[in-house]
Amino acid sequence: MAKKPYSKDFKLGVLGGGQLGRMLLQEAVNLDIKLAALDPNPEAPCHQIVNFFTTGDFNDRKTVREFGKDLDVVTVEIEHVSIEGLRDLEKAGVKVFPQPDMLEIVQDKGLQKEFYKEHQIPSAPYRLLNNKAELYDNTDFLPAAQKLRKGGYDGRGVFVIKSKDQIEEGFDAPTVLEKFVDFEKELSVIVARNESGEIKTFPSVELDFNPKANLVELLFAPANISDEIAKKAENIARKTIEAFGLVGILAVELFLTKEGELLVNEVAPRPHNSGHQTIEANITSQYAQHLRSILNFPLGDTDLLRPAAMVNLLGEEGHTGPVIYEGLEEALQISGVYVHLYGKTDTKPFRKMGHVTITAATADEAREKAMRVKSIIKVKAK
Amino acid sequence: MAKKPYSKDFKLGVLGGGQLGRMLLQEAVNLDIKLAALDPNPEAPCHQIVNFFTTGDFNDRKTVREFGKDLDVVTVEIEHVSIEGLRDLEKAGVKVFPQPDMLEIVQDKGLQKEFYKEHQIPSAPYRLLNNKAELYDNTDFLPAAQKLRKGGYDGRGVFVIKSKDQIEEGFDAPTVLEKFVDFEKELSVIVARNESGEIKTFPSVELDFNPKANLVELLFAPANISDEIAKKAENIARKTIEAFGLVGILAVELFLTKEGELLVNEVAPRPHNSGHQTIEANITSQYAQHLRSILNFPLGDTDLLRPAAMVNLLGEEGHTGPVIYEGLEEALQISGVYVHLYGKTDTKPFRKMGHVTITAATADEAREKAMRVKSIIKVKAK
Repeated sequence: MAKKPYSKDFKLGVLGGGQLGRMLLQEAVNLDIKLAALDPNPEAPCHQIVNFFTTGDFNDRKTVREFGKDLDVVTVEIEHVSIEGLRDLEKAGVKVFPQPDMLEIVQDKGLQKEFYKEHQIPSAPYRLLNNKAELYDNTDFLPAAQKLRKGGYDGRGVFVIKSKDQIEEGFDAPTVLEKFVDFEKELSVIVARNESGEIKTFPSVELDFNPKANLVELLFAPANISDEIAKKAENIARKTIEAFGLVGILAVELFLTKEGELLVNEVAPRPHNSGHQTIEANITSQYAQHLRSILNFPLGDTDLLRPAAMVNLLGEEGHTGPVIYEGLEEALQISGVYVHLYGKTDTKPFRKMGHVTITAATADEAREKAMRVKSIIKVKAK
Repeated sequence: MAKKPYSKDFKLGVLGGGQLGRMLLQEAVNLDIKLAALDPNPEAPCHQIVNFFTTGDFNDRKTVREFGKDLDVVTVEIEHVSIEGLRDLEKAGVKVFPQPDMLEIVQDKGLQKEFYKEHQIPSAPYRLLNNKAELYDNTDFLPAAQKLRKGGYDGRGVFVIKSKDQIEEGFDAPTVLEKFVDFEKELSVIVARNESGEIKTFPSVELDFNPKANLVELLFAPANISDEIAKKAENIARKTIEAFGLVGILAVELFLTKEGELLVNEVAPRPHNSGHQTIEANITSQYAQHLRSILNFPLGDTDLLRPAAMVNLLGEEGHTGPVIYEGLEEALQISGVYVHLYGKTDTKPFRKMGHVTITAATADEAREKAMRVKSIIKVKAK
């Protein structure tokens, strides 16, 4: 790059102005990287605190092109953006990371599954369906998870079909029918690759999902797994980012089956919920690493400095409207508690409103404090 | 406080929009605290990234009053602000921390010294002078440091007079003539006190000054001192903040004399250069602690998690103009290196343009890496 990222007129654009962009901004300030964000919501979490905020639809080709044309590098904090708009920008000489071709695969869970198969990346068996009717031809494949090929996000677009009599409730759209995996644990490995091809993985973490919302609710770092499994998970993450040729960071979510097998569930080519705790717990945070990757800086060391846990602050059920947080001050009395509120004005059930990272001297202590934090803080509507 | 600090319309104001305000913003984002900054420079480091930025003179009573009248709490990132303006705000019901009475003492090094004497806080012997002529009546007090009572900042306003023949170069203004202290080390302890009266100290750090600019150039945490001295330093810091009745954080700079005595050099009631490394190296950062203090939250634990060093990135001599940073990418190859650029567009000799924190497994390793970083990164003009 001729223009240095920390020079006065260098600008990094982010499609999406949510919490991930917000945490990226907190880190970008350190290197004096000017951030521009595009989001349809004029009061999105990045509003007011990024250097340049544009209200607009990141799924609209022209809007993306207009937003990005004077920027030096464009990245995303959400996958569901206009690929055409990003391709236009690439043609115009703007660097775009993650690359549009890679993003296009990630946007479509069917293409994602085919990609894993083609590159011998372990993943659960699947079938591609065009509509609900085809579910009836595949009852031999149950139990299975039916996943919308496009548009699923934050736990939406996934339906677990245990038996035939649930088929009628299934999606009538192009989907992936994925053989149900009776997993022991869900893991995540974040891996980064810069333009020069340097790769570094973060240590595996363990995820606990809220079964109702299909959302990560709790996270523990490090994952309570053997060194052998940890090594294997990191190798899969490394192989996956290399196969994609991605520049940026990639969150690789994995199932650890009861037989000790590792299967890629899905990937996200951006900062990810499973990496929030790296801000306080690792030498380099996922946000710093993402910036290092896409700006082609040397990657940072990823060692975990202290055991950590992360609690997602999800909107309480039955509460919709202007948000209030209960119990924050009580939680702040606990040592090693880091509250992150995303600045969303309204809550709704299971909306990600913030998170809390807990670091402690031991994994058990981090877990115990996380459970306390989870019971103390409540996200409600006024 | 009726209005919660993390509610939608709560606003915290900062007089000054420099690097300290900028790092405060990075932390305030975590609790979704909306920040408003006032600075005469429209391109100050806080420009564009705080929620509300006002260009104006924080030394002007009316400007301060106008800036603060709709805010919930007002704080400072520099001492040299209009006390009258802050008093007006207090009268109008705005909370002001540090309190104006305390700030008034700090603004005047003569009043500071009298305050220490009155409260039995150890400090070097001094005399108060009205002009240069009076220096000639006090030659018995040399060698001594002549310090401007008002307006000194960032190493300016201090002149060391070793012998009579230097008197002519002294300040012709109201000054403090302070007996020269032949110190072994310079230390700093940051201490916090919230509105409820809870007090916590950070562990002592050791400062290395650039002799030419009289500015902190290197810092080491923890300070290489005995537990006994460390304890004593923390007690002095605690006693000082209690004497002031300050709500907020206070950086207490101390001389450790060759005889093992501790003397308060000066204090700063705000985030301080000697606490930058707490962002990465301590459980709670000085910025988070300052917010906790002035918002009356429980104070955070201050333990040092890993040995750390801090290198101030000062503008090179002979370089004035639009800044370029040399060696940043090379420095980023070193593990545990955290670069903070302040976003100032122009450099000049000894201007504080940024800092680098280094954390490491041992104090020696942190020191060695700090020396490397110092030799690698150069702040120059284009």
